[in-house]
Amino acid sequence: MCNKFFYSVTITQKMGGCSSQSCHRCFFEYETERMIVVKSKVVGSVFRLIQFLILFYVIGYACVVQKSYQETDSVISSVTTKVKGTGFTNTSDLGARVWDVADYNIPPQGESSFFVLTNMIVTPNQTQSTCPELPNQSTICMSDSDCLEGSNDVRGNGIQTGLCMNYSETVKTCEVLSWCPLEIDINLPEHALLVAAEDFTVLIKNSVTYPKFNFHKRNILPDVNSSYLKQCKFNRKTDPDCPIFRLKDMVSEAEEDFQTMAIRGGVLGIMIDWSCDLDWPEHYCGPKYSFRRLDNKIPENNVAPGYNFRFAKYYKTTDGRETRTLIKAYGIRFDVIVFGTAGKFNMVPTIVNVGAALTFLSLVNAVCNWFLLTCTKKRDYYSKHKFTYLDNTDDNAGEPLGETTYGTR
Amino acid sequence: MCNKFFYSVTITQKMGGCSSQSCHRCFFEYETERMIVVKSKVVGSVFRLIQFLILFYVIGYACVVQKSYQETDSVISSVTTKVKGTGFTNTSDLGARVWDVADYNIPPQGESSFFVLTNMIVTPNQTQSTCPELPNQSTICMSDSDCLEGSNDVRGNGIQTGLCMNYSETVKTCEVLSWCPLEIDINLPEHALLVAAEDFTVLIKNSVTYPKFNFHKRNILPDVNSSYLKQCKFNRKTDPDCPIFRLKDMVSEAEEDFQTMAIRGGVLGIMIDWSCDLDWPEHYCGPKYSFRRLDNKIPENNVAPGYNFRFAKYYKTTDGRETRTLIKAYGIRFDVIVFGTAGKFNMVPTIVNVGAALTFLSLVNAVCNWFLLTCTKKRDYYSKHKFTYLDNTDDNAGEPLGETTYGTR
Amino acid sequence: MCNKFFYSVTITQKMGGCSSQSCHRCFFEYETERMIVVKSKVVGSVFRLIQFLILFYVIGYACVVQKSYQETDSVISSVTTKVKGTGFTNTSDLGARVWDVADYNIPPQGESSFFVLTNMIVTPNQTQSTCPELPNQSTICMSDSDCLEGSNDVRGNGIQTGLCMNYSETVKTCEVLSWCPLEIDINLPEHALLVAAEDFTVLIKNSVTYPKFNFHKRNILPDVNSSYLKQCKFNRKTDPDCPIFRLKDMVSEAEEDFQTMAIRGGVLGIMIDWSCDLDWPEHYCGPKYSFRRLDNKIPENNVAPGYNFRFAKYYKTTDGRETRTLIKAYGIRFDVIVFGTAGKFNMVPTIVNVGAALTFLSLVNAVCNWFLLTCTKKRDYYSKHKFTYLDNTDDNAGEPLGETTYGTR
Repeated sequence: MCNKFFYSVTITQKMGGCSSQSCHRCFFEYETERMIVVKSKVVGSVFRLIQFLILFYVIGYACVVQKSYQETDSVISSVTTKVKGTGFTNTSDLGARVWDVADYNIPPQGESSFFVLTNMIVTPNQTQSTCPELPNQSTICMSDSDCLEGSNDVRGNGIQTGLCMNYSETVKTCEVLSWCPLEIDINLPEHALLVAAEDFTVLIKNSVTYPKFNFHKRNILPDVNSSYLKQCKFNRKTDPDCPIFRLKDMVSEAEEDFQTMAIRGGVLGIMIDWSCDLDWPEHYCGPKYSFRRLDNKIPENNVAPGYNFRFAKYYKTTDGRETRTLIKAYGIRFDVIVFGTAGKFNMVPTIVNVGAALTFLSLVNAVCNWFLLTCTKKRDYYSKHKFTYLDNTDDNAGEPLGETTYGTR
Repeated sequence: MCNKFFYSVTITQKMGGCSSQSCHRCFFEYETERMIVVKSKVVGSVFRLIQFLILFYVIGYACVVQKSYQETDSVISSVTTKVKGTGFTNTSDLGARVWDVADYNIPPQGESSFFVLTNMIVTPNQTQSTCPELPNQSTICMSDSDCLEGSNDVRGNGIQTGLCMNYSETVKTCEVLSWCPLEIDINLPEHALLVAAEDFTVLIKNSVTYPKFNFHKRNILPDVNSSYLKQCKFNRKTDPDCPIFRLKDMVSEAEEDFQTMAIRGGVLGIMIDWSCDLDWPEHYCGPKYSFRRLDNKIPENNVAPGYNFRFAKYYKTTDGRETRTLIKAYGIRFDVIVFGTAGKFNMVPTIVNVGAALTFLSLVNAVCNWFLLTCTKKRDYYSKHKFTYLDNTDDNAGEPLGETTYGTR
Repeated sequence: MCNKFFYSVTITQKMGGCSSQSCHRCFFEYETERMIVVKSKVVGSVFRLIQFLILFYVIGYACVVQKSYQETDSVISSVTTKVKGTGFTNTSDLGARVWDVADYNIPPQGESSFFVLTNMIVTPNQTQSTCPELPNQSTICMSDSDCLEGSNDVRGNGIQTGLCMNYSETVKTCEVLSWCPLEIDINLPEHALLVAAEDFTVLIKNSVTYPKFNFHKRNILPDVNSSYLKQCKFNRKTDPDCPIFRLKDMVSEAEEDFQTMAIRGGVLGIMIDWSCDLDWPEHYCGPKYSFRRLDNKIPENNVAPGYNFRFAKYYKTTDGRETRTLIKAYGIRFDVIVFGTAGKFNMVPTIVNVGAALTFLSLVNAVCNWFLLTCTKKRDYYSKHKFTYLDNTDDNAGEPLGETTYGTR
């Protein structure tokens, strides 16, 4: 595509330049414009000033600020996380209980997105059986005729059996086949159960690759030693290279309160920025951490505020029936988001950018010519020397014309 | 790199322009080309036409259509999903049973990729023991000598014990140490068990960031209120902003049949396109949803068609032995794929693109010169005025030459 | 933005060209530079040589090598994996035991990141109770006064009860409330338990999309048939298109030893490169596989070397108490990383790159002029014809000047 295009461009140029002469002669001829030189401080200054501005733009802005002489590549990354810490809860449902990482970290594999349980509604000993639905506008009933056997509401908890049962002493609701007893999720503890979660720490291991530049690096920098890593904690000022983060510190950096967020849960982004200028030595290229809350905490248009999900542990009783403990888990999901663009000097973008900027140098002439021929006192004098008017109606084709054609204007 | 390059370019230009004169004089001189002006309607029209075409390209195509004056950035995104709905199955293995989100949604965490169980093969009460292998070419045996103790086929179900046992009344197969009884996965139900899954809904919460432009937005738009969100369902025409999707609607938009897909499973992509022109006000930038089946449904070259995986629930009997229920789960995995590029006006790409297009304006001259000097009647007349031939063999260097050199051609 | 900018550029050009004449006349006039033609083999050769170099760059480097005439798009991908194989272990804790995919593959869903268990520390029958801490500097005690009730170390295993208990016959440590007995993770088996894991295979199904070009493709190529897929194994030389990979082969390609890596675990990247030139027919665009270890295996600065995580299976005893089996799982996490950029011919980048390169053609003139006017013998002769000096102090404005002004220099 490109080749063809280019071929025709050069053909055109040659033909424009050599017209009907033979190509051999053409090759050893050099054409250059005839110029007039105007000695004018004003025009000269304007000309140099604009030239300077364009050069200043190219050097200052395009090269230094925007680094537009660089080829870029996007980061490819792999993340491993490991949470540490134990918490203690004492509730009526569960009694005194210690929570370790196998209990509160879901999923356990240490992927780039991990969840720390901070609050929960536990519904133990559920079995497949029937029980009255939770009361709401569509489930409250007076008699069996208000309930439709087999009906299955997307927002309900099971399949209606067609019976109307006592939910409490005052309220009757339709009976459903479901995991009973049903979860009552109104009584969310007002203080997060796993208070100690704020002191948990997470080790984030992140290795990145820029495939175009064959560049590999990890967030555990080579000058960091083992003993330091065993006891350090990330701190933007004192320990900016430590890859171990205290959960509360991360939430604070996102300008949130840990204990408030822990009640209803939320999603916290751990952003690792690997933007690098690879024209500099490799050790200048390091991770920059930042933290931002990703879910909506604003109370308007708030369906399912915070972050929670339900999961179950399944058991079998001695007679072979299945029971389960349903847990509605509230907590903070940490999403490690790695991004960045690396740039490195490359001929193509350099030539593209410098070339494009140089084009504007030729515009300077247009501006200065306009200035010279309209704004200066001697504009007619300049104009006469610059332009030679050839009259199309004059039929003396082939006859040499003196410079006096100026006068015919 | 750039600086050095540029320095030498400017040096070169100065020297070409000022030759041996002092720099001070040079600074206040302005050079401009001497031109001939041809009054020709044909050439003039051609010239303006080509100029117009180039300007038209720059304005019309590069700027309006391709927005090449914009700097671009790729989206960074975080997704939370929440499935709702209950289903009912009645099979000989499990009896009447209600399925809620904790049962059919795997993994439960509500990540960007979630799975809804629609069909399954359940093998309850497996224990670590020995049983005859499923019959196939390599496992059918006549006597113990056909079975190799300790052999372990990658496509088999366990470690051979070296015995040949009755699999059925007519077939003998090698015995294996495995989770027994073995799963027989030929009897996949012909109708998806969890028929009701098509009415399940999923709420997708998606927040995006364009880090270069410091732009943040969510798919729950600010003008959508809470009460609307509690009862809306996505519909491309009537409710395009509702982030709650009915599973069947999504599958239909991908031009698939839900109940057919539910039998063997599959992968459905929920593509959210956040491509935005950030030169416009922020509220014009919104998510565009589309749906596409991502796995291969074409029957040719079909290993493991559909989408399924095996998982187990582990139990302990009263005497401490471990048993498990193995489930081969068929269902639809929904992958929320967020993509997009945002563009915003930036000086560098503007200058690069405009500059490059302007270069072509100078090509117009080449074309018109060629036209003027070869195709017009008075080409010799024009040529004489345009070109002044300096003969290299002429030794009168330093002597002023009159315009009569024209005649020596 | 662009439009306005451009408008002013064209205005400027028109005014520079037409000065005070009426626009109508201007439209049908064509201006072209007056040139001198120098017949010089040296200058001509230099001129043509530099022109050739620039054209060579544009065609050879920018177009052929860098394909800078192409518009690019980043890949969007969906991955499904399925592991096959069974392993056998015989340990004092668990006895003889067969492991199938539901046991060792975590999570089971077949996502782009999957984990194969190869080694483990099993701590069965843990219950919520009290036991002495593992001995280390901060937990060893002489009497109860050394232990602080309620203290909770982030690196400890539970909440201290304030008592000092016999850990062994010689060592006393503070008692903690925790899942007891505690896991002793020093005794990691020196040979990976699941030796057979090296023969497991994984089927990787990967479908990619380039949304800008509406291009979709899968890594199971259309010319591959079902029977081949049932028995093939990926081999870079003999079976480069087979999407079924033996685990050991992948680890070997990453220049690691499977059995060494299996002991402490690790992370292996399966990189699928979909970089494509879409100007060629579709079937030239295929996946290129490569493998690289992603975690740090260098012993320096090695916190938590390898890759492991803890998870638990929960049981209930007949009296309703919860017990669990804690498993510290070591193994290899395989991360399927899909990347790539597709390019396709597009007008905008072509014009930008060709235009920018053409700009440099005009620089050739600057170089040749400098050469002509400083390095040739007849430089004064050339200079006189090229430049017409207009003296600013000369007041004869409006009076025609003959070419003899040359002599006034």
